[in-house]
Amino acid sequence: MRNWFLLICCCAALAAAPLAWGKSKPSADTQSAAAANATPGPRRVPSRVLPVPGDVSKQLQALIRAPYPPGALSPPPKTSEEWGALDKRMDTEWSKTLAALRKSLGVSVEPTTIAGVKAWLVTPNNLPAGNRNRMLIHVHGGGYVSGGGEAATSEAIMMAGIGGYRVISIDYRMPPAFPFPAALDDAVMVWEALSQTVKPQNMAIFGSSAGGGLALATVLRAKDQGLPLPAAVSAATPWSDLNKVGDSYYANEYVDNMLVTWDGWLSGAAQLYANGRDLKNPYLSPVYGDFRNFPPTILTVGTRDLFLSNTVRVHRNLRRAGVLADLNVYEGMSHAQFAGPEMPEAREIFEDIARFFDTHLGR
Amino acid sequence: MRNWFLLICCCAALAAAPLAWGKSKPSADTQSAAAANATPGPRRVPSRVLPVPGDVSKQLQALIRAPYPPGALSPPPKTSEEWGALDKRMDTEWSKTLAALRKSLGVSVEPTTIAGVKAWLVTPNNLPAGNRNRMLIHVHGGGYVSGGGEAATSEAIMMAGIGGYRVISIDYRMPPAFPFPAALDDAVMVWEALSQTVKPQNMAIFGSSAGGGLALATVLRAKDQGLPLPAAVSAATPWSDLNKVGDSYYANEYVDNMLVTWDGWLSGAAQLYANGRDLKNPYLSPVYGDFRNFPPTILTVGTRDLFLSNTVRVHRNLRRAGVLADLNVYEGMSHAQFAGPEMPEAREIFEDIARFFDTHLGR
Repeated sequence: MRNWFLLICCCAALAAAPLAWGKSKPSADTQSAAAANATPGPRRVPSRVLPVPGDVSKQLQALIRAPYPPGALSPPPKTSEEWGALDKRMDTEWSKTLAALRKSLGVSVEPTTIAGVKAWLVTPNNLPAGNRNRMLIHVHGGGYVSGGGEAATSEAIMMAGIGGYRVISIDYRMPPAFPFPAALDDAVMVWEALSQTVKPQNMAIFGSSAGGGLALATVLRAKDQGLPLPAAVSAATPWSDLNKVGDSYYANEYVDNMLVTWDGWLSGAAQLYANGRDLKNPYLSPVYGDFRNFPPTILTVGTRDLFLSNTVRVHRNLRRAGVLADLNVYEGMSHAQFAGPEMPEAREIFEDIARFFDTHLGR
Repeated sequence: MRNWFLLICCCAALAAAPLAWGKSKPSADTQSAAAANATPGPRRVPSRVLPVPGDVSKQLQALIRAPYPPGALSPPPKTSEEWGALDKRMDTEWSKTLAALRKSLGVSVEPTTIAGVKAWLVTPNNLPAGNRNRMLIHVHGGGYVSGGGEAATSEAIMMAGIGGYRVISIDYRMPPAFPFPAALDDAVMVWEALSQTVKPQNMAIFGSSAGGGLALATVLRAKDQGLPLPAAVSAATPWSDLNKVGDSYYANEYVDNMLVTWDGWLSGAAQLYANGRDLKNPYLSPVYGDFRNFPPTILTVGTRDLFLSNTVRVHRNLRRAGVLADLNVYEGMSHAQFAGPEMPEAREIFEDIARFFDTHLGR
């Protein structure tokens, strides 16, 4: 059977020539696009200008309007010295930002160590009674090569403040000194230790971007090791395939204004993290994992996100494994473009994840 | 608070210049894209070649590889004579296709009339015992201006054969003779009549494209009229906003090889159907509807679909109204690109919808 709509369109085309339908003239772009795609093959897409969508919040519009981050087009640093200089600048930036965020959301943060791994304990000033025996584990984003230290707490503060949960944010080890599997080892060790003091069915793991990928990989490995599993997982725009496999790496290239392209910072980060391992290893690219008996999972992504395919491919694999999996896709949003609590979409994303956890976690 | 990832990228950029990170040379395209997006504003996306994704079925790859349907770039016919000629050609095409589809899926189709409206009764040869008291209502796609007659049954046969449900497919009236609200009137009349002979809680309404939009609009009007509501709704890639509002009308323009662009066949079909009415009317563009107390709804779409935003905007509005709403997004798929039962993704889509109905329908 041929596709019914294709058939309709083809028939419409058959009719078009003799009937000379339209009066409107096709533009040069339209004509060239049609000519370039008149035969089977890869899709040839002309250059375009994408307006800022009108049907999103003003705060999201401002993010969509923003220029590319220049660093996205270059590979990340490789030496410890280069990273040291970068970390110093980032720490200074973050310390300003995070104090305001903690204050506005009523959240306190203190450093801790769990199973020898550095972490942050993030606590809402008003912890709802129903969440007293619950705990969330957070693994931060940043391409497995950045976003650590105090910066790790940003997303954890959002979740603690908006969702009303206590959060342990893992400050896992990173390249160049500690490539894969250090980050995964740290996350699994923290999970194992915590699951002995808090009921696993009262806990969830969450993260975005590399943190989303690491959250998935941590649960895959806990499953493989026969450890208890958390009651729920949230992976927002997870970096589920470190190779350039997934249609949105191409279709949303230069459309996403956060990541922009795989062929720069991202591919460099993948190589740094993997340190020579096969990127198809499910602990590196969890889209290739075995999701049978995986906990209920919520996935979040944007239509312009370079990781749209990374997200929907995991969603499909979860469903095919019989796992309860929710997918929320936000209009016009690029990668992890959920900024502070004053942005309605960002607040909604954390509220939705918090509600998903509330549904699936024990008390 | 600024976005945490943006901050990381900006800091990376700060560090980039003095450290001279990369050895790899950015391409001309990368450089021009970066330059064009160095200041705030609309996104400027360079011309690109999108390879056929490797991580989808061979059948879907063939559809993704297919050239544009030439008719998509021209407006549809406007006069009854032009439509008559087109209908004749389509009927001939469809009669060949549908016999094979009925046979391969074990489904019989007979014409019927319900409340004075033409329809098709589509019955699987092996009706599961659990579905004996259930009935699905189908509203076909085709931009509100085509896809009627026997062609309407294509999707209904897929659902009846794969899902094991009896289906009533409504052959609603269409422009130019019968513009809005004729199609909606027909669908509501059939729904009202059927809901007096079959328990409404044992029924669902489904459709794709214009049929997805019409399914949503039918339930919105049933709700407004105080009629009983179906137990579930499936709207696959629904045409929920007839205006060019929604980011994927731009971002997936020329990427989607089924619809290609709003500025041709689609905008013409919208005008023909609306016949001068405001396209923001929720019965025309159901994304603007009030979804409170709407039945559980499953939405399906592809990452390359021109209607990706039409779909995710409805999903978000349903969630915000407290409605149970599932969203499944298929890798690399353009608009309604779910062909015959031999395509794994197509079979999975109908299986998922059938399972959703099975969960929510009474017996």
